[in-house]
Amino acid sequence: MSESKGGKAAQFGVTPQSVDFNDWYNEVVVKADLADYSPVKGCMVVKPYGYAIWERINRWMEDKFRETGHEGLLFPTLIPLNFMTKEAEHVEGFAPELFTVTRIGTEVLEEPYVMRPTSETIIGHMWAQWLNSYRDLPFLHYQSGAVFRAELRTKLFLRTAEFYWQEGHTAHETREEAMAETLQQLDMYHAFCRDELALPVIRGVKTASERFAGAVETFSIEGMMRDGKALQSGTSHYLGQNFSRAFEVKFQGRDQQEHYAHTTSWAISSRIIGAIIMTHGDDKGLMLPPRIAPYQVVIVPVARKENAEQMYAEADRLAADLKAAGIRVKVDKREGVSNGFKYNDWELRGVPVRIEIGPRDLEQGVVVVKNRNAEEKETLPRAEAVAGMQQRLDAIQAYLLQRATDFLIENTVTVDTYEEFKAAIEAGKWVRAFHCGDRESEAQIAEETKAKTRNIPLDGELFGEPEEGGVCVHTGRPAAYGKRVLFGRQY
Amino acid sequence: MSESKGGKAAQFGVTPQSVDFNDWYNEVVVKADLADYSPVKGCMVVKPYGYAIWERINRWMEDKFRETGHEGLLFPTLIPLNFMTKEAEHVEGFAPELFTVTRIGTEVLEEPYVMRPTSETIIGHMWAQWLNSYRDLPFLHYQSGAVFRAELRTKLFLRTAEFYWQEGHTAHETREEAMAETLQQLDMYHAFCRDELALPVIRGVKTASERFAGAVETFSIEGMMRDGKALQSGTSHYLGQNFSRAFEVKFQGRDQQEHYAHTTSWAISSRIIGAIIMTHGDDKGLMLPPRIAPYQVVIVPVARKENAEQMYAEADRLAADLKAAGIRVKVDKREGVSNGFKYNDWELRGVPVRIEIGPRDLEQGVVVVKNRNAEEKETLPRAEAVAGMQQRLDAIQAYLLQRATDFLIENTVTVDTYEEFKAAIEAGKWVRAFHCGDRESEAQIAEETKAKTRNIPLDGELFGEPEEGGVCVHTGRPAAYGKRVLFGRQY
Ligand SMILES: [Zn+2]
Ligand SMILES: [Zn+2]
Repeated sequence: MSESKGGKAAQFGVTPQSVDFNDWYNEVVVKADLADYSPVKGCMVVKPYGYAIWERINRWMEDKFRETGHEGLLFPTLIPLNFMTKEAEHVEGFAPELFTVTRIGTEVLEEPYVMRPTSETIIGHMWAQWLNSYRDLPFLHYQSGAVFRAELRTKLFLRTAEFYWQEGHTAHETREEAMAETLQQLDMYHAFCRDELALPVIRGVKTASERFAGAVETFSIEGMMRDGKALQSGTSHYLGQNFSRAFEVKFQGRDQQEHYAHTTSWAISSRIIGAIIMTHGDDKGLMLPPRIAPYQVVIVPVARKENAEQMYAEADRLAADLKAAGIRVKVDKREGVSNGFKYNDWELRGVPVRIEIGPRDLEQGVVVVKNRNAEEKETLPRAEAVAGMQQRLDAIQAYLLQRATDFLIENTVTVDTYEEFKAAIEAGKWVRAFHCGDRESEAQIAEETKAKTRNIPLDGELFGEPEEGGVCVHTGRPAAYGKRVLFGRQY
Repeated sequence: MSESKGGKAAQFGVTPQSVDFNDWYNEVVVKADLADYSPVKGCMVVKPYGYAIWERINRWMEDKFRETGHEGLLFPTLIPLNFMTKEAEHVEGFAPELFTVTRIGTEVLEEPYVMRPTSETIIGHMWAQWLNSYRDLPFLHYQSGAVFRAELRTKLFLRTAEFYWQEGHTAHETREEAMAETLQQLDMYHAFCRDELALPVIRGVKTASERFAGAVETFSIEGMMRDGKALQSGTSHYLGQNFSRAFEVKFQGRDQQEHYAHTTSWAISSRIIGAIIMTHGDDKGLMLPPRIAPYQVVIVPVARKENAEQMYAEADRLAADLKAAGIRVKVDKREGVSNGFKYNDWELRGVPVRIEIGPRDLEQGVVVVKNRNAEEKETLPRAEAVAGMQQRLDAIQAYLLQRATDFLIENTVTVDTYEEFKAAIEAGKWVRAFHCGDRESEAQIAEETKAKTRNIPLDGELFGEPEEGGVCVHTGRPAAYGKRVLFGRQY
């Protein structure tokens, strides 16, 4: 078995993470059957295994939105080009990435449409028609769907011209309410990543140069991938009155005067699947957190031709017992491939627990259980394997969160000189450093080190402790923000 | 109360269905807050009340697909224009309706993209890469999302340039398997319409001239709206090997030879919301079938300022009891509008049951219950209203299906002469008639009467009994199909 396993691994496995992280990622996504390349420049095909993850994320979000009083709507995919130009910073940010529709049938359009890169503009336009009085507020809206932003180099899930999200858009009477909403949704994303995806992410505020095009304040959650790079895993923007002024989103206030609404927007996108892959993977492939895994348990009946029927039936019975316990199970009945191939395949695809069941196990009333994150197999009484499965899955979920948290802390260093800064970044770390807040300085640091500011962690957040004094690691000028800033290279 | 009610109805109600069906529809969609017009030609905004219906349909479908072994994927929204031309009938059918992307950022594309009007072509392209052996089949795929087909005249839900669906696409080894899938999905749609939406729809096969562009055989479900017009409410296509030949979707068969796959596609779209509105509405507005209604029960606390707090609390308690019984409830606490306004508003919005609860009711331990489809209110002990609510909702659901079925049967006439045919169509009926199967004749009938063939009902379906002999109602030639064809005007 171990021979054929080694052979299969060479043939069907992936480049080890430790050898080339980039190759590892690209191979894992395709070989785990999460997604594929498409004939459309920059666009991917999300395959069933990847879609099952995204559907789970999407439903979790929609249920949470409903719980918190948010309402779903569907706005057009197309936006009149002239809408984009109404908020000056917004169009500047998005113009180079726009897909433009210039023809319908044989008719050449006088006013082209763009495929939405995000929907603040068209939503602002509709809100202006729906909003009259402060009594109509807040608007708490979201839209699940696809958005379009040209990408020069495709990387499945991480950089695709079409990607998927639930974009939230809200309008409020006051700045305070809008800011509270912005932070509430940031916290929701943080908790979702932690509790569902086992992703420790750092909440913080973006520096001015990293803000969303048109925002007054952008908050983000930042995750650390296993190569030390950062992935911005979600954002929540306080847009002030920028879009409401551009689109005349105004209302009669309690004071009988006309006011512009304070608006927010926020989203987590299908990029997050890239974060799951790059945070939890290892040399063998994916490790999916049980709470998001399409299959939490895979059962491989260890059968020969002559007893295949019996072992399949046994596997189905075991699957039924696990399903009755609320667990998502798959029985692998593929023929023409070896058991060793199946084991490697499901490890590559990151299924949290594998159960092997063979004729001898059956006689003895046991099954062989292998956690994806363990080296060794265990032999357990069948009943115990079923009864203890949820606890086992919870333990794997907790393990993944702890492993990722440890990794993030170990690979974040606090520095006070630019030499240390550069060395740490070069070594693939995140850096905590004081900075003066100057845009030029940030740009220079990025040019010299390829590291940008991730965010300024919120008070109370990991790395978010306020600190007195300090001088900028780059310019030596007095530090801004009253605390250290997180820097790192990024996806 | 009755005075102010009348006043509000005039101000806030809709044109009665019986006065102008078209105005009634357009007003109901907007006033019931299902959808709104958008600044994008032909495109709508689906508002929260409409989205809640669509989300429920979408989840039902996705759950059903999963149950029957179908897998979700996401293919690009854009399709290379040259893909569309590979299946000759397909491009001919869709060319006039295509939204074409010719620019990305400032780059003018050498090869434009079109926004998908349907995804057979790009899915065929991907399948060709995924398919090797008969062992890989069947492919049972679906995709939830938006599609784009230019429309000259917008009608919310019914004719919009962007609409929503779950498009199913499957590939099979044999014609028989593909045909069985085509019919299975047709039956699934039929059962969904009947059991969830209370829509009686007629399953049948389309005549050649009404087939989907590129299909070998198109099956449809046809519903009758309350103005007697037909709405094609879902389709299921057997595509033969047309698309698999165009896109090289082939495999090595059991005989070691190369074969082209037999493919199918099928969908129900957001048009179906139009069918719900136009099948179940009445002069006052919508009547939503309880199983699909966002709110099954609305509670109006009949309160004055001095006891508002108490009555709201009482309404919340009642809502909690109903929720615990699995019922979707809304408490209407809007201030500044009269109770009469609220009653009319929720009748317009089609909520199946309204409960009024006032201080005197509270004292007596009763509530006032009004079914949307009843003329009279009932006064019931509170406990009884709660315990009997599910049964009440089931009865309303059954009532709506029966009412619609009766209407369909009453308004379908069997004719044997073209004079009768024209008179019946002019009177807004469906017609069952023999036809010779000639395309030219069909086209002439359509020109002369504005009625087209709906479908040829399947054996065993309502109106689907085989009949010997007969001559064409139009040409007098021998009848085709061995049974009568359904004709009617259509949306
Ligand atoms: Zn500085
Ligand atoms: Zn004829």
